Amino acid sequence: MKLELAEFTPPLLEYLGRAAYVQLMIFENLSRSLSSAPTTAAKAAISRAAELSIARHAALAAEIEKASGTVADAMEPYVVPVDIFERDTRGGDWYESLITCYLAAGFLDDFYARLSQGLPADIARRIQAIYASETGEALLAQQLLRGIEENPRLASRLAMWGRRLVGDTMLVARSALHFTDDHKSDEARVEPVFTELIAAHTRRMDALGLTA
Amino acid sequence: MKLELAEFTPPLLEYLGRAAYVQLMIFENLSRSLSSAPTTAAKAAISRAAELSIARHAALAAEIEKASGTVADAMEPYVVPVDIFERDTRGGDWYESLITCYLAAGFLDDFYARLSQGLPADIARRIQAIYASETGEALLAQQLLRGIEENPRLASRLAMWGRRLVGDTMLVARSALHFTDDHKSDEARVEPVFTELIAAHTRRMDALGLTA
Repeated sequence: MKLELAEFTPPLLEYLGRAAYVQLMIFENLSRSLSSAPTTAAKAAISRAAELSIARHAALAAEIEKASGTVADAMEPYVVPVDIFERDTRGGDWYESLITCYLAAGFLDDFYARLSQGLPADIARRIQAIYASETGEALLAQQLLRGIEENPRLASRLAMWGRRLVGDTMLVARSALHFTDDHKSDEARVEPVFTELIAAHTRRMDALGLTA
Repeated sequence: MKLELAEFTPPLLEYLGRAAYVQLMIFENLSRSLSSAPTTAAKAAISRAAELSIARHAALAAEIEKASGTVADAMEPYVVPVDIFERDTRGGDWYESLITCYLAAGFLDDFYARLSQGLPADIARRIQAIYASETGEALLAQQLLRGIEENPRLASRLAMWGRRLVGDTMLVARSALHFTDDHKSDEARVEPVFTELIAAHTRRMDALGLTA
């Protein structure tokens, strides 16, 4: 069984507002990669990934409305920190941006799925269904693998970028956690979860033949 | 009954390839407007419009596959002309870009819905259902109206931009028509359709209080 973050889950609308804005950021990253895709085949693949990503955002936005919230108001407090994360992880070219889409989306989806365990049971089930739905991960991996195949020197640059990315991604994820007063004990309980999240990140790098 | 363009409809995969790439361009425009939206409320509205737009592209892409085509190959021949249209109509600021999303999508959806009349009946029905599905038009109009309300001087600039836009949009639409050898007679039959399309464009401008 996966380790959970239930005891650190924020109140419902805070959870949903953050999760929805993070998804919107992931979608915007994909849209940028779509617009600057080098081939029409890449465009077709990434447009499918973008479609799946915006559907995930829309499902989270629908949960905000179900909880009597307003989508814009719920997301508002998280715009600045998430936008800073986005800017810091944008990457210097198309492949760096694309691997950000692939790695950050994988990590953050995994994180928010676990964090939902502390929500009321029926909502938690719906949220987990959202995060369990089809993603564009395999489509993005395909595009990245093709790029590395065509230009093997890309591998070391993307490996470096992927290693850098994990720190920023961990920080933006952690900022969602509601800690108690006993920070030391909290850290000890959160740590194994992040160890698992990082292991999953490493597997995503492995899938591209990159050393994390 | 609406005037039709059935006699000028291109072969199925040509129709679908163009229509799908035009939708992808419309979606990319919306994504850009989303990324640079001035408020979180605007982001929420435009993300919904983007979601509807990519769903429309995906539905057309699915038709390409149903017709045993490859999405990327079918779109390929139309990438350059449609990208040129996109670049020429991008607009100088957020509101010009947004009114392009609103006006060009309205015009081109209307055009491609009519052009589908010349396809085999069962496919034509499905395509028309795609074009009859919910759009983000009202959401975009709301954002534009709010901008004009806050800054009345925006109105004359957007009116001018909207007038300029119709020429480029007509040209990119017309390039999809398969003319016969009798160009003069073709022009005479096509003209009333474009008169109607322009009337619809004028109504979209009117809805924002702009003079076309």
